[in-house]
This record gives sequence, structure tokens and C-alpha cells, in this order.
Amino acid sequence: MGLLIKNGEIITADSRYKADIYAEGETITRIGQNLEAPPGTEVIDATGKYVFPGFIDPHVHIYLPFMATFAKDTHETGSKAALMGGTTTYIEMCCPSRNDDTLEGYQLWKSKAEGNSYCDYTFHMAVSKFDEKTEGQLREIVADGISSFKIFLSYKNFFGVDDGEMYQTLRLAKELGVIVTAHCENAELVGQLQQKLLSEGKTGPEWHEPSRPESVEAEGTARFATFLENTGATGYVVHLSCKPALDAAMAAKSRGVPIYIESVIPHFLLDKTYAERGGVEAMKYIMSPPLRDKRNHKVLWDALAQGFIDTVGTDHCPFDTEQKLLGKDAFTAIPNGIPAIEDRVNLLYTYGVSRGHLDIHRFVDAASTKAAKLFGLFPRKGTIAVGSDADLVVYDPQYRGTISVKTQHVNNDYNGFEGFEIDGRPSVVTVRGKVAVRDGQFVGEKGRGKLLRREPMYF
Amino acid sequence: MGLLIKNGEIITADSRYKADIYAEGETITRIGQNLEAPPGTEVIDATGKYVFPGFIDPHVHIYLPFMATFAKDTHETGSKAALMGGTTTYIEMCCPSRNDDTLEGYQLWKSKAEGNSYCDYTFHMAVSKFDEKTEGQLREIVADGISSFKIFLSYKNFFGVDDGEMYQTLRLAKELGVIVTAHCENAELVGQLQQKLLSEGKTGPEWHEPSRPESVEAEGTARFATFLENTGATGYVVHLSCKPALDAAMAAKSRGVPIYIESVIPHFLLDKTYAERGGVEAMKYIMSPPLRDKRNHKVLWDALAQGFIDTVGTDHCPFDTEQKLLGKDAFTAIPNGIPAIEDRVNLLYTYGVSRGHLDIHRFVDAASTKAAKLFGLFPRKGTIAVGSDADLVVYDPQYRGTISVKTQHVNNDYNGFEGFEIDGRPSVVTVRGKVAVRDGQFVGEKGRGKLLRREPMYF
Amino acid sequence: MGLLIKNGEIITADSRYKADIYAEGETITRIGQNLEAPPGTEVIDATGKYVFPGFIDPHVHIYLPFMATFAKDTHETGSKAALMGGTTTYIEMCCPSRNDDTLEGYQLWKSKAEGNSYCDYTFHMAVSKFDEKTEGQLREIVADGISSFKIFLSYKNFFGVDDGEMYQTLRLAKELGVIVTAHCENAELVGQLQQKLLSEGKTGPEWHEPSRPESVEAEGTARFATFLENTGATGYVVHLSCKPALDAAMAAKSRGVPIYIESVIPHFLLDKTYAERGGVEAMKYIMSPPLRDKRNHKVLWDALAQGFIDTVGTDHCPFDTEQKLLGKDAFTAIPNGIPAIEDRVNLLYTYGVSRGHLDIHRFVDAASTKAAKLFGLFPRKGTIAVGSDADLVVYDPQYRGTISVKTQHVNNDYNGFEGFEIDGRPSVVTVRGKVAVRDGQFVGEKGRGKLLRREPMYF
Amino acid sequence: MGLLIKNGEIITADSRYKADIYAEGETITRIGQNLEAPPGTEVIDATGKYVFPGFIDPHVHIYLPFMATFAKDTHETGSKAALMGGTTTYIEMCCPSRNDDTLEGYQLWKSKAEGNSYCDYTFHMAVSKFDEKTEGQLREIVADGISSFKIFLSYKNFFGVDDGEMYQTLRLAKELGVIVTAHCENAELVGQLQQKLLSEGKTGPEWHEPSRPESVEAEGTARFATFLENTGATGYVVHLSCKPALDAAMAAKSRGVPIYIESVIPHFLLDKTYAERGGVEAMKYIMSPPLRDKRNHKVLWDALAQGFIDTVGTDHCPFDTEQKLLGKDAFTAIPNGIPAIEDRVNLLYTYGVSRGHLDIHRFVDAASTKAAKLFGLFPRKGTIAVGSDADLVVYDPQYRGTISVKTQHVNNDYNGFEGFEIDGRPSVVTVRGKVAVRDGQFVGEKGRGKLLRREPMYF
Repeated sequence: MGLLIKNGEIITADSRYKADIYAEGETITRIGQNLEAPPGTEVIDATGKYVFPGFIDPHVHIYLPFMATFAKDTHETGSKAALMGGTTTYIEMCCPSRNDDTLEGYQLWKSKAEGNSYCDYTFHMAVSKFDEKTEGQLREIVADGISSFKIFLSYKNFFGVDDGEMYQTLRLAKELGVIVTAHCENAELVGQLQQKLLSEGKTGPEWHEPSRPESVEAEGTARFATFLENTGATGYVVHLSCKPALDAAMAAKSRGVPIYIESVIPHFLLDKTYAERGGVEAMKYIMSPPLRDKRNHKVLWDALAQGFIDTVGTDHCPFDTEQKLLGKDAFTAIPNGIPAIEDRVNLLYTYGVSRGHLDIHRFVDAASTKAAKLFGLFPRKGTIAVGSDADLVVYDPQYRGTISVKTQHVNNDYNGFEGFEIDGRPSVVTVRGKVAVRDGQFVGEKGRGKLLRREPMYF
Repeated sequence: MGLLIKNGEIITADSRYKADIYAEGETITRIGQNLEAPPGTEVIDATGKYVFPGFIDPHVHIYLPFMATFAKDTHETGSKAALMGGTTTYIEMCCPSRNDDTLEGYQLWKSKAEGNSYCDYTFHMAVSKFDEKTEGQLREIVADGISSFKIFLSYKNFFGVDDGEMYQTLRLAKELGVIVTAHCENAELVGQLQQKLLSEGKTGPEWHEPSRPESVEAEGTARFATFLENTGATGYVVHLSCKPALDAAMAAKSRGVPIYIESVIPHFLLDKTYAERGGVEAMKYIMSPPLRDKRNHKVLWDALAQGFIDTVGTDHCPFDTEQKLLGKDAFTAIPNGIPAIEDRVNLLYTYGVSRGHLDIHRFVDAASTKAAKLFGLFPRKGTIAVGSDADLVVYDPQYRGTISVKTQHVNNDYNGFEGFEIDGRPSVVTVRGKVAVRDGQFVGEKGRGKLLRREPMYF
Repeated sequence: MGLLIKNGEIITADSRYKADIYAEGETITRIGQNLEAPPGTEVIDATGKYVFPGFIDPHVHIYLPFMATFAKDTHETGSKAALMGGTTTYIEMCCPSRNDDTLEGYQLWKSKAEGNSYCDYTFHMAVSKFDEKTEGQLREIVADGISSFKIFLSYKNFFGVDDGEMYQTLRLAKELGVIVTAHCENAELVGQLQQKLLSEGKTGPEWHEPSRPESVEAEGTARFATFLENTGATGYVVHLSCKPALDAAMAAKSRGVPIYIESVIPHFLLDKTYAERGGVEAMKYIMSPPLRDKRNHKVLWDALAQGFIDTVGTDHCPFDTEQKLLGKDAFTAIPNGIPAIEDRVNLLYTYGVSRGHLDIHRFVDAASTKAAKLFGLFPRKGTIAVGSDADLVVYDPQYRGTISVKTQHVNNDYNGFEGFEIDGRPSVVTVRGKVAVRDGQFVGEKGRGKLLRREPMYF
Repeated sequence: MGLLIKNGEIITADSRYKADIYAEGETITRIGQNLEAPPGTEVIDATGKYVFPGFIDPHVHIYLPFMATFAKDTHETGSKAALMGGTTTYIEMCCPSRNDDTLEGYQLWKSKAEGNSYCDYTFHMAVSKFDEKTEGQLREIVADGISSFKIFLSYKNFFGVDDGEMYQTLRLAKELGVIVTAHCENAELVGQLQQKLLSEGKTGPEWHEPSRPESVEAEGTARFATFLENTGATGYVVHLSCKPALDAAMAAKSRGVPIYIESVIPHFLLDKTYAERGGVEAMKYIMSPPLRDKRNHKVLWDALAQGFIDTVGTDHCPFDTEQKLLGKDAFTAIPNGIPAIEDRVNLLYTYGVSRGHLDIHRFVDAASTKAAKLFGLFPRKGTIAVGSDADLVVYDPQYRGTISVKTQHVNNDYNGFEGFEIDGRPSVVTVRGKVAVRDGQFVGEKGRGKLLRREPMYF
């Protein structure tokens, strides 16, 4: 049984044209004018709408034991929210801690997802230590189809690696042709500044940003880049938030270091004053790197428009109000995370494309294509082409609405973007040829989502 | 009568897949697996080959009265050479001098091309003065479908504009939604350094580079960027050659100035030692900005790979040995130009993609798609999509050959890349659905090429 | 008859010690402990005070026909104010306009000063055109002891030079061993932006800054640096006001270009909100480059502390309220200038040294020694050493006061620093061995000031 | 008994004049023209010579157990060599290893010097771990007059500190008002690259530089700067060798971080090709950071001229040929060091001042005054002023000679600058009023040198 999307305006990272798309089974098999389809084909009329490739969120947390609690989503709730927002693939951080066995962690994370997701997914495999067992286990995991690693330069003694472990991870990644994503903040400075602030009685959420200042992120970024330069590995900075860190990464790009940059949607639209509102309202806006001074917004939007920032993800990680209050006596105990898996695409389209700061092709590239290319999903994902998976988003640019916790699908009791207007939304979303969202209503099939096994890239 | 290209591997700036392409008339109407075609369709078997969108050279000179002589090509010779090398569209600099009437110049340049080109073409309209008639004439020319300007910061009193004329041009361009391309070198410094060197008896071609040092190009680039910043116009630096100029342009990009960067193929592969060989051999390698110190090569390749350099053109401008010898007594009289319209694509593919310095999608983007987007040709040109012109290049990556004047189609008695190996070449090239090159042999139809009228972009 | 200053703490750019200073006639002849002096010696007890070398203001206007009026000071009023503030030498901009004969201008400026100044002075000779007579006249002026030039990149058609004239000036300066000071703003952009703003009805003083944005100053600075680089001349950027211009100058310093940087006291302490207060209050704060966004203050103080900014002058140029009102209908007609000759040293001491942002030796260096070295006055001026002129400032760091028009000696009806606290002031000031200020009271001798003839430096 | 130096040209960082200097006992008490002296005064005629303040070497090793051996000098040999070369004060690195007790180390280092040095000296106290005893011991050492620390970011497990120890050291330094000097290279990268190279059979001295590439030094410098920024401590980068590290330090200076830069004389004059000569000849040129690519020379000279590099030291550390051969099988075992204590001043004068790359005042500043100011020795040392120690260098700019092991006083069997011409040398050198070198001959008194106890600076 097939799927025919007619009369839409197809927009990819490098194309824009009106044509029909026909998928036979899970795959696009034909693109053309006035395509006809056999009986039984589901026909979607996309007149007046855009047809985008399914969007990819390269950075989410679904299952996550962290800071004495657990992130709220399951793959069922998370993938439903993703699809409602036009994201048809996500890459979850598989994050066993330093105290866990790496391979067991991987199996655990896989088991949480298996059979539960409405959309396709894969993992970045966190390397949170590098002992005698690690290398063998990582080889096994890569062989199982996971061709990207994640390291944390912060979160010492929990997720964090030291310089020696970073070196070993990058050396192995280079050998295996695997890209390494990295959370870049100096562990020691964060820890010391936290202690210093707390010891001075500065315990509220407004002290979270000063405990991880921009210079600390810039340092991590520069050090990561230097390690890439000296190992030949390819890297990807996650959730870059500020100009000094951008400068560090750009300096590396300019001297030919293979380093890519992700920022996340909160850093484009929210700023540190949100975390200065006091009480639980402020705690909702705690993530790391923290929301920054507003002057960074223009810097990030410009860098995104230029392609200096390669991708836009979310670092989706929902903790509810009650969980946030774990940190009521000390900002260091507030679970970190501002969930956005459902809203990323609409926000980026609205405040980027619709409000005139972002070319529509760069939008598709940053929210889908570039991630597919960097993480071995391309051209299966990230584009609309014959042979690609029929993950399609029929997008209605006429829609006008407002983001609210009342209408969200993420499993959380607040939405950090409450009240933000949106200038469009997905009307129809398909997962490998089957409709999961129709007229803005969820009609997905649980467990349809599959683990995407990926080949190393050998950049 | 249609065209069907079967079994090729389609590669665009954002896609890579195996499919058939069918064009009915001049336009691609269908892309799919196992397409069938009506009788009378020309069928090309592209098995084992890549299918690229037709390449675009955004910077060529065909008709050019310059430095007391004329560039050697006609549209007939130039477009034939272009097609043999996979370039299916070129943008010629329409360059009346300061002493000519702008509108008459435009008509003259149009008349030289009309009916003579094998491939499509359009113009960047040079603004070489800005007097009381200029604004009205430029409005007329833009209305005729020419939506890009060219200014020269160098060549004082011939092509060059002063700061006031640059301002007026940019102000008008902003109003009209037209992009402005610019040759960025400080006119005064070039002129003074030339006089100084000649007066010291330094007359040979090896003094050409020192007469236009890197700092002089960086100054022009920075000044152009500042004028863009203060007018809101969108700009495009042509033939950027060196790190200091790149730094100036990147600084502007980083602060959100809408500035794009072109470099040209000679600057990636040749260096100033070529112009230090003495005699006419050296004179062949005189262009402006000049061939630079070799340390710039890595800088340019890295910047191209990162997308910091947006496009790669040629500044094609053939002068033969006899013409070059006009400058035998003074390097300032050597006609400037290293022709490359025929070799650009093969060289960029070979030394970029094949030798491992450039992603194949970035190659397509830099040599085709990005120029189409910047100059109002997209999606008609620059991609392979339903509705796009069927300008296609079936490229044979197995071909091995050597560049030589003996086999070239450019109307010149030398080739600056003589002896350079190439790791591929166009096997079939089509112009709007008709084959112009088949099995590496030219079979084009004179006069098939049309002037591409373009809408303003309102960036 | 001699002068003996006893028991002071001598502080120069590189020394700090307690000793007595003895001057026989105009010159320091001995420094030592417990010096004895012959009868008739004037003895100053400096116990508890600092003894600084006389301060040098490297950038003032005294006589100045400008913007349809004349600056208010004479050498009598200006030099008195200077001495009261601890400045014992100033360098006046000798500024004939483009329409004046250069040599006649020089004679005129000399005549205005001769016999009228209480303190020593010299000139920077403005080159406001470069025609066939200019070179010869400049040689004559340099031979007369004026070894520094001034050029304006702005003020087109009045003071301004174009690129060709700048080149000629620098070429000649290099030959003669003369330093060239430069006002760096792009003339064309300033003119065009002024016209644009006025045509939009933006006529108030708050539009002055937007008519000469930071990028326009950065452009001028970068261009000037490039011309220095290509002529080998030594340059000095006057009144640098903002980070982008500093970045441009620092980039040049880093690549070895001999360029020095002056900022002026208003740019360290005032910001553009002063010019946004409306009416004549705002007009008082119009100078060029304009007062900037406050974020530049930290940048300038840091750069001064590091020695990146070499000197601090004033661009002293008093126009009174009535004159300022010439611009009530158009900000372009407001005479430019914020007088500060009297307050520079006290402000820099107070907000730099006393408030902890500036090392006391760097203070002496920036306000005296470095200017002496750059402009051929050293070691006659700028230090306390045997053989140096006995220009000394006995400074009382215990004094507390407030700046006010009521107590000033500058010939003006307002003071831009009205109400600013000061944490010290000169108690005694000497000019070549004679006391001109005693216990904060003026006791100078008119006409004692001499023109300082200076040798070229051949940097 | 006094000392009178007559008729010399006194040159300090900010002064240049002809005068006589009289010292009564150890201290300068009078400077003036035609001074007379009581009978018994030693009178030196400095006609035709310069008189400089005694030079200070801020970075030497005398006693040093390192790399399985000991540096060759004793305080007797080292101080004699220092004085012959015009250095009247040196600051030795007091370097107990991580395995030693800090306080015991300090006592040991003190005991080695006491009574043995011909010239004054003091210590930078190395902090090579930070355990529960460290803070108390450091307080004691600072109270004993040692107001500067030293940390190593490299030499893991021997001298090196990790990020946590660096933080604690800087925190304490901030509290105590003590400056922290730092060897900035990434320990982990050096270690890993060394292992990698050795495992590939790359064991010769030519692999030393690739084992500690420029990026590794830049990383350390940037990280150190970030830690300064977040603790408020004042820092000093020792032996900076290359442009990337300079860029990192300059970026920090530009944002107001209190960081100072030392480079050492080998990095201005020698380059990595010296270590590529093979065999023991190459091993002589092994130090860390390593000798670099020659393109860094102009960068360092320019930065020194501008004052971006604050001081020039030596990192003096002699190992003889036999010791160097400890590394004949592995470059990692070559004792590091290129001795220069005797030649630094002459080389800097010759290749800086005499050959036209360095202003003579900047020379004095970089080789003496700035170090005195940064390390709490000023104005006792570093200048010629009443009240300062009479450490004076009568320098003969007419002398011409050649550096050679044959004539050196350093206790070593080679000289890394063998054959370098010098354009001047100290004729007379005094230590607190007593002549130690006369007519280029050593006449010093053993044990005259004293430990200089210094107060904290509270920058």
C-alpha cells in the first residue's frame, strides 16, 4: 500500500519545487508532476503547504537517571511529542554513569526504547570512563550500529571524563570512523564555583549561570578542539550557548579542525533573566550550559544563518515542577533540563524563517539534513529523494497558534515556551510511508519506530 | 521529445541516491525508480556514473575590451569550452568602462552573446561610475532581468568606483533587492605601489604580486563589508585569494553582515612562484588579485570545506601569449587573466573530492547550487528536482586524464593548468533537456543558450 | 636662581622613590637625598605628595576656525587651564583647511601661540591636501622643528584627505622620519549617513552617534593601518573610541605595523546617553568620534592598563552653549568638542589610579612619557631625570574636590564633567624651573611658554 | 666607601640622559651633573658607554634534580655567569617535585644558594601538588618573603598540577596577593603524543617538537587564563614560544584578565631546525616548549616591541653533552634545557636594539624593569633612581665579539649560541655598590649575593 502526497511545495536543504511524492512501502520511489497512484494508496493533498523532510533532533534525553531522579518522558510520550512537532527521528544520549558498566548501560537504554517509540531513533553512546573494558565494549557497540560517541567534560565523577579518557575516546573514535559529540564545560571550574557560591549563601537558581560562566564553556570548547586537532578525530560540540564558545569553535574550524557545532532551541529564544524570576518559575529554566545574557541571541542567529552553527537540537530533558523543587535549597540540586522536543521545529520556523532571520533551506539543513549527514543517517533520512525513507512533514505555514502546557504531549507539567506564538505547524507527518499525524491529530502506531543502525563515516 | 537518464547516482548539494530522471521538453518532470519513457525519448545510461546538476560559473569574462586589447573568447568558443567541462550556465561580467554609457554597454554585451552561446548565461552588471544617468539606467537593466551588480574597488579611472559611487550603488541595490559583487583591492595603493616598483626598475611579472599585496585585498574587503553594513545591501566578494582577506570577510559574516565569498580555481591550485618563472611563462600566470604565497592553499581549501567560502568560480579571461607580451617591459601592461572555464569543475572535483579535501555535496553546492541561490537562478538551475531545467552532468569518476592546451576548447594558445591530472570528467552534458556533450564529444547546438532573466532577491 | 623640591615621592613611568630634585635654571641637575641648595633657591616642600613629570596633552585645539565659528580658547586661557590641571606641554593641531595655504596656515597658527602661552607647546601639522606645493612646504615646516603630521580621513572637502593624498603624506613622512597622526573615520559613510538621517527628519543631537557608527571608525582605522603597512610610515590613531576600532588597530600592531593608539578622556568616562538628553544639554556632548555605548568603557580601561592604548589626550576644543546651539536644527551643525585640558590628569588619576583600574606608572606613561617619546620631546619632557626640563607636578593625593564650570579656567560656559569627583590635584606645577601653580593657585608668567622644536624620529 | 660612575649615558625604561651616579654604600643616593665624591670612592669613567640598571633574569634553574640527573650549575657558577652577562638578579625556580615535601624543598633550595651566590637572587615557589599541608606551608613561605608561585600544567605526576590543584593555588594566590607563574602545556596531550611517537619508532630529538605542538601550548595558555579569570588571581605565562599561545594570552589580556607574558631568549633566535640536525648536536637544542618553526620569530619580536610580551628570561638550565645523551634512545629522556643566563642581555641587545628591532627603553623594560615590577623587586631593582640598589651595568656598545663555549662561565661543555655575534657587552657590573665585573673581567665576591625577600603585590 502506498502513499501519495500531491500538490505540495517540496522544500529541502537545496531544492524548492512543486511536485508529487509517491512512496511505495516505506520508501520514496517517485517524484514528479501529476503522479498517479494505484488503488489503495493513501492520498494526501498538500495544496498550499510545504513538504519538508522529516526533522531530526540530534540531542534528546528520554530515559535518564540524573540528579537523584529520572527524566519524565518515556519513548512513548517522547516520540509522540516529537512527531506532533514534526520530528521523525531523534538521537538519544545513551548515558550510563561512570559507575555503570558501559555495555550493560547500552543494553538497558536499548531496551527502554524497543517497541515503545512511534518514530525512528538511534543513540549517541556516552563514554563516561575509559578503563580496560571500555575499548572492547565500544567496538561492540559500534559494530551494533551506533556510530557516534558522547563525552562530558563536565559532571566530574558522574558522566565526566578527564583529559586522558578524552584522548583515548578520540583515538578510538578516529580509528573506528566515529564522530564524538561533547558537552564542553570545565568540570573543575564549575565544581569550584558552585562550592564558592553556595558557601557565600548564594543558593537560588539565579546563581546557576554565574556558576558556569561563558569563559568556562569557551575553555571546554577550545580544549576539546585541541584534542581533536591532535588525534585527527571528528567532533561535534553540543548545545553551544554563547559568543566566547562560538569564537573558540570558529577558530578551530578556521584552522581546519573537523569540528561541528550544535546549539539548542532554548539558547536562541530564552535568556538568563528567565532564571532570575525567583522560585520554581526560575527553576524551570535551569539547564547546562545555562541560559545566557541576551546579547548572545543575535550572535547565535547570525551564526546559524551563516552555517557556522551546523545544527539545532533541543537537549530535551523534562523534569516536572516537583522534581525541580529538589533544588529549592541549592541551585546545584535542580534537575537540569528545558524540554523542547515538540516545539523545536515550530519555534525555529517561526522565529527564524517566518520572522525573517533564517533562509528556509538553511532551516531544513539545520533541523534535519545536516544532522543526517553528520550522524550516518543520510540519505536515508534528512532529504526528500527517491530511495529515502518516506519521513515527510506536510507543513502548514498559515497556521497560527500559541505554545502551551495545556496542549503539549511531552510528559511534563510546564512548558518553558508557554505563550510563545507560532506561525505554522505540521499538518501531516509520516513515518516511513505511514501517516502518524493527520490534520494535526496524532494517529501514530506504537512501536513502529525502529532503532537506526548506522555505519561509521570515516570523515 | 524527452530525455531519460537511467541508473545514475544522483548527487546534489543535499541528496545522494540512485534513480532515473525524466525530462519532458526542457524541464525535469519526474524522478523515480525504473521510469519508463515514451518512444522517441533519448535514453542515456548512466550506470556507474554520477549525475550532477549542471554547474554554474558565477564569474567569467567573454567579451572584454581591457588593457589595450580584447579577451580571446567569443560566446561560441567560451560556451563550448564551458559545456565540455560541465558548466551549463555562466554569469558574464558586463563591463563597460567609466567612459562608456552604462546602458549602451549593457546592450553591446547582450548583443555579443545573443544567438551565439551553446549554453545559458546571464550578466552581472558592472557599475563603473554613478552619475545622474546611472540610477535610471540601472533600474532599466534590473527590470530587464539582470539582478546583480558588479563593482571594482580597484582599476581607478577605468572600471573603479570611489567610496561615494560605491555607497550610491549599494543604496540602490538595497532598494532594488539586488546583490552586489565586488572586486576588492584598494585602488590607490595598487596604483602607487605599481609606480614605485616600476620606478625602481622592477618591471617583470614577478613584481605583480608585490604590487597588490595581501593587505591591499584585505583592506578592500573590509571596506566593502563596512559599506554593506551601513547600507543594508547584500554583497559578494569575488575571487578572494588569501587569509587576510578571508579574515576580513569572516569577521563581517560573524557580526551578521550579509556578505558572501567567492574564490576562483587558480587560487586553490597555483601560487605566486608560477609568476616568478621569468618571461612569458610567468606572464601567463598574471591575474588580479595575484597568485599568492602557497600557505594560502590550505586556508582556502579549509574555508571551502567549511562553507566559509561560498562559491568557486574562475574569473575566466583568456589572453594569448602574444597579448601577454604586451607587458614585456612592464608588468602593469600584462593583460590579466588565467582562463579556466573548461577545467574548473574537473579540477575542483579532482583536487577537492577525489583527493579527499572536499565533501561531494559541498562540491556541488560551491560549484553550482550556492551560485544559483545567490543570483536568482534557483531552483531553475543548481539542483536536480522536478520543475528544474534539465541541465545535467553525467560525470564519469573513472576517467583519468591530463589537462592540456592540445585538447582544450578555450580559444587560447596555452592552458595555465597544463599537465594537471584529472580524476573524472563529464561524459554527458545536457542543456535544458538536449544533449550537448555525449561520450565526451561536443554535439551542442549553437544559439541554444538563452539569456536568463532573473528576479531581484530582496535578501 | 634654582628650584629645590624636597621630600616628595618621585613617580615616573618606571621609577618610584623618595628624593629631592634640584634644578639650576630650567633643567634638572641633581636628584638625591638631602640635597642642599644655594641661597636664593625656591624650596618646595613636597612631603606627603607625589612628584610627577609635567603631563603632556598630545591632542588639543586652541585656535580653530571650524564649523562656522571659532573654538573659544586662546593660548592664554588654554595654557592657564592646562597648567592648573598639571599639563605642562600641549601639542596643538595646526589645522589649516583644504582651502588654505599650508605654510601660511602654519605661520598663522604659530603667531597665535607666540608670546601668549604660559606653558610649552608644539604642533602636529595638519596635511589637508597634497598638491604640487605641499611637499616643499611640509619639508620647510619639518625643518622648522615640527616633526609630526595630522591627517583627517573624515571631514571631506574641509580637512579631509583622500587615499591618494594619504599615500603621499605617508610616503613623505617615512622619508622625513615624521610620525603621522590620524583621525580615522570614513568620510563618505559619515557624509551619506548624515544626509540620510537628516532627510528622515532625524535632526537632534542623539543622531550624531548613529551618523558615525563604530564600524565607520573601525574602517578608517583599518585603512590607515594598511597604508602604514604599505608605506613603512609610523602612525598614531587619535581619539580612538570603541572596541571595533581598537580591534582593527590591535590587529595591525600584532602583525608588526608601527601604529600607536591615543584615546581621549571623554571616551573613558562619558557615553552616548549624555548626547541623548535632549536640547543644549545633549549638544554639549557632541564630539567626533562620538561618545559611544557604555560597554566600551571597560574595553578602553583594560586596553589602557595593558598599554594597548598608548596615550590619553583630550581633543580639547571648547565651544560654548551659544555656539553649540548653531546646531539646534541639525546635529551636523553642532560644533564638535568636549573641552578637558584642565581636567584630564585629575580624571585619569582619580578614575584610573585612585579607583584601582590603572597602575600609577602606566598613568604617568600614558599621560606624559609615551607622548614625549612618540613626538620627539623625550627626554626633555616626559620624565624626571638629570638634564630634563624641570617641568614638575607636585601632586596632592589627599585633595578631594568636584569638577565644576564655576572653578574652571577653560574659556567656556560649561564643563562636560560637571559634578565629577576628583581624588587629587596638582599642588605645585613648574615650567622649566619656575613655579606656575603654587598651592593650587595660578602664579604663571604669560609668554613663558615656548615652541618646542623637535627632531624627526626615524622610527 | 662609595661608588661614582661618571660621564655615562644613563638609560632606563623611561629615561635617557647623561649624568653621574653616586652610591653611598649599597644604594644610589645622588644623580646629577658633575658630582664630586669623597676620597676613597671608587670612580668609574663611563664615557662613551651606557649605564643600565642591573638586569634581572626572571626564570632560571640552578639547583635542579630533573630527568634522572641534575642541572650542572651551582649558585657560584651560575651567578658568576649571570654577572659577566649583566644580570645582577635572578629568580630561581624552587622546584620540589610532587613527591617531596614543599617546605622541606624550599629549605633545601635556600640552603643551596645561601652564601654561594655572587649576585642577589630570589625564588618562584613551585606548587607541585596541593594537599592538606600545602596551604599552610605556602603561607609560611610567602611570609618568609617569597611572593610568587610557579605551577606546571605539564610534567604530570612529577611537577604537574591538575585543574583542581591549579584552582586551589590560584585561589590562595589571590588571597595572599601573590602572582602565579605557569608553564602552559597540556600534560595529557604531551604524554600521549610522546607515547604515540615512540611507539612508531620516532625516537630522535627531531620528534620532540611534534610531541608538544603549538596547539598544546596554546591550550595550556588559554586554560590558565580562564582559571585566572575565574579566580581573580594574577598570572604570568613563562617561556611562551609561538603565535597560537600568544594569541591565547592576548585574547585574555584584551578581555581584562591580569596575565603577563614571558618569552625566553632561545625562542627569539633559534628554531626547530636546530633540533633536526641529528645526534647530540640536536639534543643540545631540546627544551620545552620546544624550539618552533621560524615563522614565529617575527611574531615574537613584534610582540616584544609592542610590549605584548612583557619580559624576556632564559629558562636557563644547563645539561652537558653526556647528560643530553641520556636521551639517545628516546627523545623523552633528553634533559631539557638551553642555558643562556650569561648571554641573554647581549643577545637581546644585539639582535633587538643594535639590529633595529627593539627600542632601547623597551629592552631595559623587558630585561629588567618589568620583571622587578611584577615580582615585588621594584624600585629596589630594575631602575636607576635615588634609593635603588646600586646594581649597575656600564655597557660598551662598541664592543664586538662572538659567543663561544670557550669563553663562557656557565658550567657546561657547549653553548647553544656558539658563533653568534654580539654588538656590545658589559664593561663594568656592580652589585649593591661594589664592582663585580671590571673591564669585562670578573672580580666579584662570593657570597655577596643575598636572598631578596619580597612583599606580596595585591595586584
